[in-house]
Amino acid sequence: MILDFLATFGAQLQKPTLAFLIGGMVLAALGSRFEIPDAIYRFVVALLLLRIGLGAGIEIREADLAELIVPAILAMVLGAGIVLLGRFTLGKLPGVRVEDGVATAGLFGAVSASTLAAGMVMLDAESVAFEGWVPALYPFMDIPALITAIVLAQLHRKRKEGTEGRVALWPIIVDSLRGAALSALLLGLALGLLARPESVYESFYDPLFRGLLSILMLVMGMEAYSRLAELRRVAHVYAAYAVAAPLVHGLLGFGAGYVAHVLTGFSPGGAVLLAVMAASSSDISGPPTLRAAIPTANPSAYVGSSTGIGTPVALLSIPLWLALAETVFPA
Amino acid sequence: MILDFLATFGAQLQKPTLAFLIGGMVLAALGSRFEIPDAIYRFVVALLLLRIGLGAGIEIREADLAELIVPAILAMVLGAGIVLLGRFTLGKLPGVRVEDGVATAGLFGAVSASTLAAGMVMLDAESVAFEGWVPALYPFMDIPALITAIVLAQLHRKRKEGTEGRVALWPIIVDSLRGAALSALLLGLALGLLARPESVYESFYDPLFRGLLSILMLVMGMEAYSRLAELRRVAHVYAAYAVAAPLVHGLLGFGAGYVAHVLTGFSPGGAVLLAVMAASSSDISGPPTLRAAIPTANPSAYVGSSTGIGTPVALLSIPLWLALAETVFPA
Amino acid sequence: MILDFLATFGAQLQKPTLAFLIGGMVLAALGSRFEIPDAIYRFVVALLLLRIGLGAGIEIREADLAELIVPAILAMVLGAGIVLLGRFTLGKLPGVRVEDGVATAGLFGAVSASTLAAGMVMLDAESVAFEGWVPALYPFMDIPALITAIVLAQLHRKRKEGTEGRVALWPIIVDSLRGAALSALLLGLALGLLARPESVYESFYDPLFRGLLSILMLVMGMEAYSRLAELRRVAHVYAAYAVAAPLVHGLLGFGAGYVAHVLTGFSPGGAVLLAVMAASSSDISGPPTLRAAIPTANPSAYVGSSTGIGTPVALLSIPLWLALAETVFPA
Repeated sequence: MILDFLATFGAQLQKPTLAFLIGGMVLAALGSRFEIPDAIYRFVVALLLLRIGLGAGIEIREADLAELIVPAILAMVLGAGIVLLGRFTLGKLPGVRVEDGVATAGLFGAVSASTLAAGMVMLDAESVAFEGWVPALYPFMDIPALITAIVLAQLHRKRKEGTEGRVALWPIIVDSLRGAALSALLLGLALGLLARPESVYESFYDPLFRGLLSILMLVMGMEAYSRLAELRRVAHVYAAYAVAAPLVHGLLGFGAGYVAHVLTGFSPGGAVLLAVMAASSSDISGPPTLRAAIPTANPSAYVGSSTGIGTPVALLSIPLWLALAETVFPA
Repeated sequence: MILDFLATFGAQLQKPTLAFLIGGMVLAALGSRFEIPDAIYRFVVALLLLRIGLGAGIEIREADLAELIVPAILAMVLGAGIVLLGRFTLGKLPGVRVEDGVATAGLFGAVSASTLAAGMVMLDAESVAFEGWVPALYPFMDIPALITAIVLAQLHRKRKEGTEGRVALWPIIVDSLRGAALSALLLGLALGLLARPESVYESFYDPLFRGLLSILMLVMGMEAYSRLAELRRVAHVYAAYAVAAPLVHGLLGFGAGYVAHVLTGFSPGGAVLLAVMAASSSDISGPPTLRAAIPTANPSAYVGSSTGIGTPVALLSIPLWLALAETVFPA
Repeated sequence: MILDFLATFGAQLQKPTLAFLIGGMVLAALGSRFEIPDAIYRFVVALLLLRIGLGAGIEIREADLAELIVPAILAMVLGAGIVLLGRFTLGKLPGVRVEDGVATAGLFGAVSASTLAAGMVMLDAESVAFEGWVPALYPFMDIPALITAIVLAQLHRKRKEGTEGRVALWPIIVDSLRGAALSALLLGLALGLLARPESVYESFYDPLFRGLLSILMLVMGMEAYSRLAELRRVAHVYAAYAVAAPLVHGLLGFGAGYVAHVLTGFSPGGAVLLAVMAASSSDISGPPTLRAAIPTANPSAYVGSSTGIGTPVALLSIPLWLALAETVFPA
């Protein structure tokens, strides 16, 4: 069975998505001067998020909203829960400052659009069906995670400073909604839901999805390699956390998907995507949000562990959730 | 009938083109940090203009050039006439400096490639036919408008300075032809006319047209909202002019199209596009051209009124010309 | 027969590839302010190189590697031989410094990805078949050319300084492999060979190939015109060399292809591509590589002659190799 898994895993590494990721890491490791201009990177991310939002919005229009409630609540619990779990795990480890641990846990609780996109493309390639609105669970997991991290950081500061007082939640929520990634996703959702963007979705956003994702994987592979250097400057426990967290969080996400399956008939593909979102860590909107909200945290720690290790591990573990779904859910 | 119009208008707002425009305005109004990198914006505009030029050039090759003469002359008269009309309307309003009024009228007389592209896509979506060479009328309206504005500004300056002498027309014409937008359009036209670019037109420029336009509409919506703030700093009459002008100019353009229909059998779709061009105000090449040629004019006045109000009004009025064509021209 | 050739040549100038090149030159000559942002240019080049590499890699998987050996050796000999030929030709001409001559010969020996892409698209348009792995000969010609030039320059410096000692080859090889262009091509090759990127190749990289090439031709046309001005500042012999070299090198490449045809049945289309590669001069990775490795050479000389004259001549001579193949190889 392990051999069988290794064979499947090897086959998945040859699929474009993971192959381009590994290609990017190899290029960076060999010291190549190849690069994708930053303007292109940001545009590709915007297109992918619009595509994910549009697709989910168009599907939600026809969907039974009652079905969405259970997975959405589970996504919120996962987002906040992963951050709390991370904060207390990292808090017990040696050499970890509270702010750094909170920011790291926040990124690992938040969601990566590119990892989600990779999961969607890989499910498609395997012809595993999922409810079209599942990608719309993204903000339900992402926002609670970022808010939990920022609130934990503010509580810690107030305790240190000896001041008391409540933490204002609303400005934190508004600020995460205004981030570039969530804005693009929610804009896509709103357009898919309220307008009739099918013509442009089918002629432009959807056909370019796979190709643009391959570009993004290249960038993320190169970025992951270069962030590893930063990670060496901080405590080694970050690396250990960054390897283990995506696997643990993915299992939690998969478990939540299984619960939703039992309760409301949530699809196996949906459970895989919930695992992918839980395993992923925010690479685009999370870092600047946390940098602004928790200025005392060290970006080498949280960006290094998330982009340098967390994201590749999350991407490489997608075949794991696919294999798990095949085993757990009867065909 | 008004209810009927409102229903049609509501349906048009759901079409991708206008929905993305409104989406962009809402994003900006909510303070989102979403943005399309400037390099992408400029490239998307270049591709749309090449696409418009190539398409028109390919069509002109087969067209009866005699048919083109009447609409082309009407376009020139419209371009220059709108600027003269605007200069004397704005000149009578309180708080308007002559240079600012002339520059504003110049932008509203010139043509917006993105508004024209939106009109083309919306006619296509409604299956309303038009002569393939109609988009080639763009420079016939755009250049006379910019030239009229620059000449009016130079005449005003000479009168103020008490100097006499003729205004040199040729350098102004050459300079507008060298602008990025007109260059791209004319290059496309020339390639469509003299070369055989069908293979690349059909495999690349045409299929990407709608999708790229949706990106551009997003940018224009965000840009419009942020320009509104600038407009608040200048006299309120600019806002009134910017709301009324696209409607008045569009009606003039539609009327000219009707005249061409009676004289030479110009198509109803062609009349709609002539109205769209007349209603539009230049957003890409016009502002820098006027900034260089009329340095004493205040950009907050002319760019604010054109990009902040004129362009969204022109885009939102496209369904009006479509509805008018359905009423005026018998099926 | 000359009339026949001129007619064929005229028809080729109307094909999108060459028409966009000429369009770019005309735009620049007329002083247009049209431009393609640099980030877009670099991205388009990266996509074309990935496409060339992926396509070749997928083909090599099925290919008989024994067939590849003879053309690969011939490509290496051509790359190094063209540089040696250029160094001694330019060395005998008046007003040419050794470093400048070596760098110029180096660029003309190296390969241009965009010229190769143009050759591939033009062969496709004429339905002339070639072995899918032929584009993979690129590095076999490019690397020996750059290495030969750098070694010649280092030998010259050591002789001038009176020092002795061997030139280290390995660092030069590694450095050229790390260049942006070769990295992208080799990444594509490796992914095509080791992974299964067919889905993304067929849905993204291949369909965009022609369109992106048309953009690149525009940029190269504009760039060629603006480099001509630089060339005027250096000795006129550079211009003579830049006109003659692509034709001579293309003939050498075509001859090598003919030899391979006789020896191993290399296809006529393959001989044309070998001629195109030999005629081309490096425009993307060559200049920065040589600037770093031969800092005493004058870029106005080598970039001016290569980008200003060599590249347009190489592109415009592609129909020549096509016509030659039709004559030399029996149908």
